[in-house]
Amino acid sequence: MGRLADDVVCDAPAGRLLGVDAYRQFLGPFAQLLLGSELLAAFGDDTTAVLVYDTRTPPVASAPGAECLTVRDGKIVHNRFIFDRLPFEVARRSAG
Amino acid sequence: MGRLADDVVCDAPAGRLLGVDAYRQFLGPFAQLLLGSELLAAFGDDTTAVLVYDTRTPPVASAPGAECLTVRDGKIVHNRFIFDRLPFEVARRSAG
Repeated sequence: MGRLADDVVCDAPAGRLLGVDAYRQFLGPFAQLLLGSELLAAFGDDTTAVLVYDTRTPPVASAPGAECLTVRDGKIVHNRFIFDRLPFEVARRSAG
Repeated sequence: MGRLADDVVCDAPAGRLLGVDAYRQFLGPFAQLLLGSELLAAFGDDTTAVLVYDTRTPPVASAPGAECLTVRDGKIVHNRFIFDRLPFEVARRSAG
């Protein structure tokens, strides 16, 4: 996938995150929950890559996601994450 | 994009829809709300296509989505839609 640019811009469902630290703080907690994932599709060209996958975590048995990455000079400068926050929100609410 | 197979399977955030009628009932109301859309990425091969786009509707100014389509014999037999339902849910709640 290439490395993250220091000033990577991440458009997540909750809003825009700036920089590699914010990016890692966004993904870290999710990565720790991850029980499994399945890659459904991966395409790309010199500047853009798209991933579609399914994820399995304790709160949500199946949470598909997509990422649309922009690469410049071998580094990821932008990533748009698309997934449905609603089942995570419902799980959080029912957990109290 | 190809035509929809009569028995198209659609995996939407709210669950699985079977058949072309269910598919159209899912997309129809959204299509009527649509003020604009912007294609962000489109890739594919002989059997799979992935679209990433942003959409603009009255309740949600920016709602990115992704579709991962499977094509067989020139027809769409499966489509997985990925988008965040949460902002639509929030808009519905605040509209009463």
